[in-house]
Amino acid sequence: MKTDVQIAQETVLEPIAAVAQSLGIDETEYEPYGRDKAKLSLGLLDRLAGRPDGKLVLVTAINPTPAGEGKTTTNVGLAMALNRIGRRAITTLREPSMGPCFGVKGGAAGGGYAQVLPMEDINLHFTGDMHAIGAAHNLLAALIDNSIYQGNPLNIDPQRVELRRVVDMNDRALRDIVVGLGRRVDGVPRQSGYDITVASEIMAVLCLATGFEDLKARLGRIIPAYTYDQEPVTVEQLGATGAMALLLKDAIKPNLVQTTENTPAIIHGGPFANIAHGCNSVLATRMGLKLADYTVTEAGFGADLGAEKFLDIVCPSAGFAPDAVVLVATIRALKFNGGLAKDDLDAENLTALDEGMANLEQHLDNLAKYGVPVVVAINAFPADTAAETDLVRERCAELGVRAITSTVFTEGGAGGVELAEAVVELCERPGEFAPIYDSESSLRGKIEMVAREIYRADGVDYTPEARRQLERLSAQGFDDLPVCIAKTQYSFSDDATLLGAPRGFTIGLRELSVRAGAGFVVALAGDIMTMPGLPKQPAALGMDIDQEGRITGLS
Amino acid sequence: MKTDVQIAQETVLEPIAAVAQSLGIDETEYEPYGRDKAKLSLGLLDRLAGRPDGKLVLVTAINPTPAGEGKTTTNVGLAMALNRIGRRAITTLREPSMGPCFGVKGGAAGGGYAQVLPMEDINLHFTGDMHAIGAAHNLLAALIDNSIYQGNPLNIDPQRVELRRVVDMNDRALRDIVVGLGRRVDGVPRQSGYDITVASEIMAVLCLATGFEDLKARLGRIIPAYTYDQEPVTVEQLGATGAMALLLKDAIKPNLVQTTENTPAIIHGGPFANIAHGCNSVLATRMGLKLADYTVTEAGFGADLGAEKFLDIVCPSAGFAPDAVVLVATIRALKFNGGLAKDDLDAENLTALDEGMANLEQHLDNLAKYGVPVVVAINAFPADTAAETDLVRERCAELGVRAITSTVFTEGGAGGVELAEAVVELCERPGEFAPIYDSESSLRGKIEMVAREIYRADGVDYTPEARRQLERLSAQGFDDLPVCIAKTQYSFSDDATLLGAPRGFTIGLRELSVRAGAGFVVALAGDIMTMPGLPKQPAALGMDIDQEGRITGLS
Repeated sequence: MKTDVQIAQETVLEPIAAVAQSLGIDETEYEPYGRDKAKLSLGLLDRLAGRPDGKLVLVTAINPTPAGEGKTTTNVGLAMALNRIGRRAITTLREPSMGPCFGVKGGAAGGGYAQVLPMEDINLHFTGDMHAIGAAHNLLAALIDNSIYQGNPLNIDPQRVELRRVVDMNDRALRDIVVGLGRRVDGVPRQSGYDITVASEIMAVLCLATGFEDLKARLGRIIPAYTYDQEPVTVEQLGATGAMALLLKDAIKPNLVQTTENTPAIIHGGPFANIAHGCNSVLATRMGLKLADYTVTEAGFGADLGAEKFLDIVCPSAGFAPDAVVLVATIRALKFNGGLAKDDLDAENLTALDEGMANLEQHLDNLAKYGVPVVVAINAFPADTAAETDLVRERCAELGVRAITSTVFTEGGAGGVELAEAVVELCERPGEFAPIYDSESSLRGKIEMVAREIYRADGVDYTPEARRQLERLSAQGFDDLPVCIAKTQYSFSDDATLLGAPRGFTIGLRELSVRAGAGFVVALAGDIMTMPGLPKQPAALGMDIDQEGRITGLS
Repeated sequence: MKTDVQIAQETVLEPIAAVAQSLGIDETEYEPYGRDKAKLSLGLLDRLAGRPDGKLVLVTAINPTPAGEGKTTTNVGLAMALNRIGRRAITTLREPSMGPCFGVKGGAAGGGYAQVLPMEDINLHFTGDMHAIGAAHNLLAALIDNSIYQGNPLNIDPQRVELRRVVDMNDRALRDIVVGLGRRVDGVPRQSGYDITVASEIMAVLCLATGFEDLKARLGRIIPAYTYDQEPVTVEQLGATGAMALLLKDAIKPNLVQTTENTPAIIHGGPFANIAHGCNSVLATRMGLKLADYTVTEAGFGADLGAEKFLDIVCPSAGFAPDAVVLVATIRALKFNGGLAKDDLDAENLTALDEGMANLEQHLDNLAKYGVPVVVAINAFPADTAAETDLVRERCAELGVRAITSTVFTEGGAGGVELAEAVVELCERPGEFAPIYDSESSLRGKIEMVAREIYRADGVDYTPEARRQLERLSAQGFDDLPVCIAKTQYSFSDDATLLGAPRGFTIGLRELSVRAGAGFVVALAGDIMTMPGLPKQPAALGMDIDQEGRITGLS
């Protein structure tokens, strides 16, 4: 089979003007970025405010494994398949981070015949949103250090600057740094570091904002530092809101592109799914709901992280109620969850598969608690056997859930027609969506609800520091915010090695901090890496481009 | 008078497609970025290879002062005026750095009625070139630290990594940092720092590249580090050339915009004018020469830095021979050069003006050595008196040079008609351009030639370190490269306080290093700041944008 970049470069794209026109978007409501990308004006939402929303479909997955799940591929393929069966569909996706692209992961724009295009742009700078977010973040960081240096009128404690700097690069050497060295005129020395841009609170803010004024209000509420008296210092107090908003004036506009079958795709924003909520922007999804009959969106990592955050943070905040959920799994990943080693996944193994199904079943059981109908998509791999596929189908059927094989990677939309028909059927059922917790319950109550009901932990162990922070956050009036639990994506527990559906564990809660702009409290369960490193053989070393623009090594 | 941003937002722009069409650019030869910006394909140069070049006009200035000179304003106004008198003209300019925009300086896209538009985009992210250059640079930095961490196969000495990281922000706290702190898995600790992106060698490489293959060849030659044995380590050896070129695939394309009078403008690249050569890209200028009868380009800082580098580095490398030079001066700046305090510049003072003319005269005398005809543009300010203007005119006439008042800031192109006519007349004279030194003379010979002939120093004092580096660079075969002398822009000397036309000084040469990709040797004369800081009241704090996109505080 051809490589992703070969398929991408051979696909004939429609002019983006034609894609926009097919959605009824007026010429004044978008700006082209090249011939096959466009930014959509927020005015579009004002014009369409009265139009009823289409159906909202969330694509999520079992816990990720090194075996690969194909969530984005399934999302893209499903949208294409919906169009094939005569339903007007849009896929909405997160913007990939450039950093991992040069490391191990390669691209993140789907794969095979189910990609969003132009993949080489989407995987790199795209329309500049990631850089704009980085610039707004780093301007704030520079203004804080400058304020400390220029007489410190806000009484900021240099040891309590919580904002780090960001760059969209995997660069381990920047995790822990000391800034402000040199002479007196070179600033005030203090320990700090860099995160990858997708970990910036400004990314989360942009993705949760419902409009430009809301964006500014959220930016202004961010608390990047505390005073010597431990009082919060906000962006508004620093006077940085306007300049940061100015830097985000284009980044706030969702990006229109298309799939390998010319299905419209809106790609916008891409926050981490551990320390942030892991979903594309609310504005992108809202545009999808207004422009199409079906909007297929996606949440990061497995359903315990991404879907939980979509359902408990994004939906209540944006007023979304999903009509159906697609849970993506692969036979390989299920066998890995059943304890099989990575090198043995190509051979049929019904015992390991049977064992690994526990992971999928717990996700199904969890999703049922939200009152949203679910279908399982088995993303097909060549080594899957009929007996394995049957086993998954039967076990799902026992829970009243259909499991449908998807071959969109090799066949495009045609490989997702059965899945699309099932999704349409699910969307006709009356909605009973509700988040897992009430916003009125305490932060502690919310954390324990998720730990018990989703992770199936016996309880939560707080460090003394976490206990103090819980009390302080309650006292500061943040009890109403939802919680964003950051833990490993590889397990329901906080131990990456506990695969399947572990029991008899507790969640260790290390630290809490408020993201007052984004509007959630981050609860760290374990060591979360916010600045990845490059591997021994970075993917970057295999990349090239020639004079004619032919790209190699990007997948 | 209205503010720059008011004038900018009130101007009716032509669709960029119409601007491209007016230049005979085919629809396949550009990509729109929004409605009023476009990237020009390099294929354009292949198609027009056989077309004869138009005239090339360089705009430079006396030594900059806090009083303001208006070089970009004059450049833009001259191009508009040339069009008014029936000559097809294009202005080519450097892309402004975003960092200073949030500090003191404000925007850098001309001023008043002689601006390039959309100024709010040009001054901020524009089409993303600056961020792309930063990303390519920082990818290289990450790959170097990763190589050291992953067993150091290239034997890189962590204390001899010359490449710093870059960001397009004024952030003094990043000047001197220690990276790689933390645990073993967080990398190898070493001292480093950040420069502002315009100081990156990759910026200089992009601006001197003559095409995509040349860009890659130059990237591959960059020497970011040395081994423990002091042997150069190149980008090619690191295997980073392809990925860096991939990140620059769009940044290498010049950007088409327009002026306040819809005159085409190509804005591309913006290297520092001290540690780099300070001119827009060779590709932008070359496109101008093929598309228009007159291309008005510009060099950074005063003529001792920017014009010298344009004439001695850029022209020989790109094969350009300028047809005329416009030397911009203001009465205010000349009086400042004559010793008047900044607060006294509004009152007529013929004595100070007479004294300050020494600065202008030395620049005229220097430019004559290059064999290019010159005209002086007096950028008019309200407080200028007739007696002052007459004095400048008469003194210039004694040297056989016309001095013409330009009022393009308040009147647009109409205020530059006399200047445009003079430029057209100069361009008819036969060209006798030659650089000040031969490429065959030694690095030392080149440095001393510029010091003697341009700065009028009595000699050059080398530090022992500089002496050693000179010998090493000669031994490594870099004697053929031109020299890029980095000194203060405020004086002909290396002492910023010596205004006018100082004599009886020597130039202190502190350090040399090779920019093997850009193709020059940087010679540092004095302390050159490559990472600016923010002032006590950063301009950022006065900026805002509302829901309708109305911007305030950007000038």
